[in-house]
Amino acid sequence: MSLDSFFNPESIAVIGASEDPKKLGYEVFKNLLDFGEKIYPVNKNEEEVLGEKAYKNVSEIEDAVELAVIIVPAEYVPEVIEDFGKNGGKAAVIITGGFREAGREELEKEVLNVAEKHGVRIIGPNTAGVQNTHNRLKATFTREAKKGKIAFLSQSGALGGAMIYKTSARNIGLSKFVNVGNMVDVDFSDLLGYLDGDETTDAIAIYMEGVRKGKKFLNSAKQCSKPIIVLKGGKSESGSKATYSHTGSMAGSPRVYDGIFRQAGIITADSFEEMFAMARAFGQPTPRGNKVAILTNAGGGGVLLSDKIDKHGLQLADLDERTKEELREALPPIASVKNPIDTIASARGKEYEKSVSVIMEDDNVDILIVVHVIPTFTGMSKVEHAEGVIDAVKEKKAVKPIVTSFLADDIAEDSRELLENEGIPCYNSLEAAASGAYALYKYSTGRN
Amino acid sequence: MSLDSFFNPESIAVIGASEDPKKLGYEVFKNLLDFGEKIYPVNKNEEEVLGEKAYKNVSEIEDAVELAVIIVPAEYVPEVIEDFGKNGGKAAVIITGGFREAGREELEKEVLNVAEKHGVRIIGPNTAGVQNTHNRLKATFTREAKKGKIAFLSQSGALGGAMIYKTSARNIGLSKFVNVGNMVDVDFSDLLGYLDGDETTDAIAIYMEGVRKGKKFLNSAKQCSKPIIVLKGGKSESGSKATYSHTGSMAGSPRVYDGIFRQAGIITADSFEEMFAMARAFGQPTPRGNKVAILTNAGGGGVLLSDKIDKHGLQLADLDERTKEELREALPPIASVKNPIDTIASARGKEYEKSVSVIMEDDNVDILIVVHVIPTFTGMSKVEHAEGVIDAVKEKKAVKPIVTSFLADDIAEDSRELLENEGIPCYNSLEAAASGAYALYKYSTGRN
Repeated sequence: MSLDSFFNPESIAVIGASEDPKKLGYEVFKNLLDFGEKIYPVNKNEEEVLGEKAYKNVSEIEDAVELAVIIVPAEYVPEVIEDFGKNGGKAAVIITGGFREAGREELEKEVLNVAEKHGVRIIGPNTAGVQNTHNRLKATFTREAKKGKIAFLSQSGALGGAMIYKTSARNIGLSKFVNVGNMVDVDFSDLLGYLDGDETTDAIAIYMEGVRKGKKFLNSAKQCSKPIIVLKGGKSESGSKATYSHTGSMAGSPRVYDGIFRQAGIITADSFEEMFAMARAFGQPTPRGNKVAILTNAGGGGVLLSDKIDKHGLQLADLDERTKEELREALPPIASVKNPIDTIASARGKEYEKSVSVIMEDDNVDILIVVHVIPTFTGMSKVEHAEGVIDAVKEKKAVKPIVTSFLADDIAEDSRELLENEGIPCYNSLEAAASGAYALYKYSTGRN
Repeated sequence: MSLDSFFNPESIAVIGASEDPKKLGYEVFKNLLDFGEKIYPVNKNEEEVLGEKAYKNVSEIEDAVELAVIIVPAEYVPEVIEDFGKNGGKAAVIITGGFREAGREELEKEVLNVAEKHGVRIIGPNTAGVQNTHNRLKATFTREAKKGKIAFLSQSGALGGAMIYKTSARNIGLSKFVNVGNMVDVDFSDLLGYLDGDETTDAIAIYMEGVRKGKKFLNSAKQCSKPIIVLKGGKSESGSKATYSHTGSMAGSPRVYDGIFRQAGIITADSFEEMFAMARAFGQPTPRGNKVAILTNAGGGGVLLSDKIDKHGLQLADLDERTKEELREALPPIASVKNPIDTIASARGKEYEKSVSVIMEDDNVDILIVVHVIPTFTGMSKVEHAEGVIDAVKEKKAVKPIVTSFLADDIAEDSRELLENEGIPCYNSLEAAASGAYALYKYSTGRN
């Protein structure tokens, strides 16, 4: 069975839906009302939930129910799954906690056995839930993520939720969100298989503390044709101990994980910021090598970014003599046409267009990074440089990847929006831009 | 002569002030009008600038002029300094570019000679200028920084300006801003000496590409009693080459700089984000050691933060048995009272207060980090956990340093403001919190 029932169900039962705004069953049911009409509240003690007729059991529902979202106390979960499975249910998101993580592994096993008997797949238990932004399915108590192209899988519910707030605030769109919970059934491997075939997903970002079946994960990651970026928790001695108290599972030797990640061509990130910076870079042409050209109006930005790309194993491209000649013609006389190319502050949008265009044609360049500091004193338009970059990219039909970093937070917002709308990632920091460029390169080589 | 004339002058002449909004002389003069009354525009071709009577030369000004801000073309700078010096001028910020960085080292030397003859000190040339947020002095064409306790010195004008936007957008306050420019006279060393005696400065943050007088810098850094945090551009091979094209000076061997930084007890940062995260941590009690307690309502946050502190050479504290006992009493039954302490999501503000209070009394703990994920489902107030932390800190009169990370961007803003107002740094990422804690520790050991 495909996991599609989790993300595109025909109908949903919320078992444990509640009228009490302090309960998770209230939040979850309310969140699901955006999805569509076939949402059924199930609660033994209620006649109605939020104006919808409530059912005592799934078996009472006239319609076939494809997905169940379960928020009843742990001890009732097996019988709920039994009822759901007997009535043709296909997938269950078990939000309820109090299983393995509370020492009740037996109960968790029982849930799995009942589910397997009926062919019901499970996400959870102890999960914050699932979202599909492309049909507004929110089987979760967390906030709705912005629609986008990154699938985000998290082994921490609380951090997963926090990252939904963070990505939303920073205009980073997600395609799917899954907090995997205790992974009694559906695990990272299964989800990789599903997401590989998901058209709305360009890249898969994972916060992982540990996997139980290393070989299964390695195989599914190897088979997945999309970029996978992993932030691994518990990489250090202290972190590994902390993982143990958190999920009761060993984080495992960092070296074992490093080996799996390397073999599978997985890109590893060091922070959530870096993970999303990397994931956002995709949807671009694939670079043929690791040679980077930097175009900037801030000399210091060229210096710092050079340090950052060096750290990632990328190199400054030696520009072709003809490129330098054309840049010399295009730019102000005191501009530096040696890579990093410093246009100096007086260069305008048209000069950016010409420069990007020239650099894109240089065979020595595999990736272009534009580092821009909004000029505050020359009467230039705030967005003319972004427009220049976009015009050049359109003209050249984006033959090579380009990432940009428009520094200066708030006043760069308009430029960022213009660039992102054209599929050109625009970062708020040099480090993020370097990570994005690195991810593109790493993905292109990891697949060879 | 103290450098105070740059930051607290009695009177200022803007030489090259202009009525033309496209010129730097317009921006600079306009910016300075906020400072006070004794601001005199000097321009040979104007009668008035922005409604103020313009002077042909400094010598025409009736009043004594302490500070000159110079924006006339490079070739006129020597005679301008001559006129200014003869009339008792003390300090000049030379914004004008086109000196050493354009191959005109002779002209730069001439400027220095004239200045020395008259005892005039110089910041620049080729500088974006100087700000003192505590008296609203803005001898610069960039935006006004927010008032605060971090002195920020930058060797890049464009990045310096961009960071003023960035710190403002993120509510990070600066005490002084100096873009050092070509450092023909006043250099990092002089500024360290001055800032050490500046009451409005708690920490000194520097973006540095290179210093010419290594020994002088080492000595002044050693003598400076305040924390110095340096972000060094040109640390890698690529970056070093880029530095050369940027400022024409060698970045120098990374190992030489590492040696200087280590000997001087300087804290090094890897990015602007980290530099400001570190600088913001100060104004706290000094930690006695490297043992960290983590209090969190997100297990995954405890795991990732443990990795981060480990990377910085900090360690998880072994909590005293009595502490664990008291935490067990204070927190929900399934909370984990082993460090990292996981309060679980249902813990409320009062429980945070009690926990912080108990942890602060544990002699095994040197630094406390609170990692908080705003709960989105339990009807709790968004700020009660921040209030709990604040109450505990007040009660204990802040005997040990505490840093916090309230994740989730926008909805955490209110909590962040409350904490910051009480002098408790509150970061938007785990990495920043770890960097802040590390900086406090490093400063405490670097001074031994």
